[in-house]
Amino acid sequence: MKIIYSIKEMSDFSKKMHLQDQTIGFVPTMGALHVGHLSLIRKARGENDKVVVGIFVNPMQFGPKEDYKRYPRNLKLDAQLCRQEGTDVIFYPDVRQMYPANYKTYVVVQDLSDCLCGKFRPGHFKGVATVVTKLINIISPDVAYFGQKDAQQAIIIKKMVEDLNLAVKIKAMPTIREKDGLAMSSRNTYLHKDQRRDAVVLYQALTQAKDLIRQGNRDSLDIIRKMRRLINKRRSANIQYISIVCPQDLKPVDKIRNKVLIALAVFIGKTRLIDNIVVSP
Amino acid sequence: MKIIYSIKEMSDFSKKMHLQDQTIGFVPTMGALHVGHLSLIRKARGENDKVVVGIFVNPMQFGPKEDYKRYPRNLKLDAQLCRQEGTDVIFYPDVRQMYPANYKTYVVVQDLSDCLCGKFRPGHFKGVATVVTKLINIISPDVAYFGQKDAQQAIIIKKMVEDLNLAVKIKAMPTIREKDGLAMSSRNTYLHKDQRRDAVVLYQALTQAKDLIRQGNRDSLDIIRKMRRLINKRRSANIQYISIVCPQDLKPVDKIRNKVLIALAVFIGKTRLIDNIVVSP
Repeated sequence: MKIIYSIKEMSDFSKKMHLQDQTIGFVPTMGALHVGHLSLIRKARGENDKVVVGIFVNPMQFGPKEDYKRYPRNLKLDAQLCRQEGTDVIFYPDVRQMYPANYKTYVVVQDLSDCLCGKFRPGHFKGVATVVTKLINIISPDVAYFGQKDAQQAIIIKKMVEDLNLAVKIKAMPTIREKDGLAMSSRNTYLHKDQRRDAVVLYQALTQAKDLIRQGNRDSLDIIRKMRRLINKRRSANIQYISIVCPQDLKPVDKIRNKVLIALAVFIGKTRLIDNIVVSP
Repeated sequence: MKIIYSIKEMSDFSKKMHLQDQTIGFVPTMGALHVGHLSLIRKARGENDKVVVGIFVNPMQFGPKEDYKRYPRNLKLDAQLCRQEGTDVIFYPDVRQMYPANYKTYVVVQDLSDCLCGKFRPGHFKGVATVVTKLINIISPDVAYFGQKDAQQAIIIKKMVEDLNLAVKIKAMPTIREKDGLAMSSRNTYLHKDQRRDAVVLYQALTQAKDLIRQGNRDSLDIIRKMRRLINKRRSANIQYISIVCPQDLKPVDKIRNKVLIALAVFIGKTRLIDNIVVSP
């Protein structure tokens, strides 16, 4: 496995691979790899000749008051995990190379970027869409793998790839969870012990919603009310949003008739966690 | 020469060429080809194994009150000209394929898009940047050729390609002019006979500015005042803007010390014409 730091070297590698008719699977990450990331790498490993893992903490997708500076970074450990999973290349560019002074270009996916998390993190998905466009252009992968945990991100990236005619297939892979149901996230490391106990409530609320729908409840407002009640029982929990939306256009659904995406963001102490499930009535 | 109408077929062609290590030169146009376009095709022909001419009147770059509907279209004549110049492929997609219902993604190059023409055509360069990104992704050319007549466009596209790490080289080729100096433009066909006579004043004003600078005048405001006076002598002329700016960041220059871009937009009757020159003091 090699670690490539330079954009030029990375794109040369990809060009060489493509001329040899080798396929490239790409797993973009911000590092601090957990079992969720590893499941993406494993999937990429099974489906492609070469696997590239991107590790880049993208400043453009963090708000001014968010955790860009303290976001966990550990290249040594990440590299070890990548190697174990059979990664061929870690692409690890620095910020100045990705965004030189005088950087001016942004990719915006309208409508889909302004709701759910986008409502509370203005500019976040612009940052995501822009960096993913750059990474895809540098690496020209055949397939790029995203986690369904970031459901809105996966939907936006799929739309962007389709709209901009990018020659890459996007695959969103199932959320990987801890034993108690908490979705794997690099930010889980921020949680203190009792916060970690409270954090499971995101999954519990989603499970409750699924059960209610399976039992015939079709009323989103009622379901959301019950989810709120459950979450608010936890001392450290502070709900940012709970939404039941169409998984295509992310528009709110009042009466559940078709498949819905149930998504939520909850602060556990100062740590913002997100989770979601897709449920068919 | 073949005309390709489908995005899929176009990208398959390019993929096949690249696997055979054939280079592709791309000339994006909105059709209504004139000698300026032909000079780009000729250049592309000389430098690449395959030449693709794009013909697509891009609705996204027209304002609601602009000439999208009446913009000249003549595929038959364009195809004949392309064939004569040794074009391999005309890429001629329709609007619904390029922008299906529910299209949502835009590329924005900040700062550079809001001044000069961008000030009077809000959204224009967003439309240009977006369609050029799409075309580059579909065709994956090695080199794309633009006319220096659209100086701001060429500068924006170069910046976008650099920022988004697109694997294409952008070349801006010299403006081709009629005998009297009028810059070649598809919109020249809109001009009536005396308007055509008046239209030469854009070039005359630019030449006057160049002469003034060569004679030692360094005062942009004074030069612009003299250009205005010259243009306003023409009955059908109505100045939209005249600017003297830095050719890199497009910021206005008061005191001319280095190379400047002198750019202007003038209505001749109802027809909006643009032109520019780069002058070193």
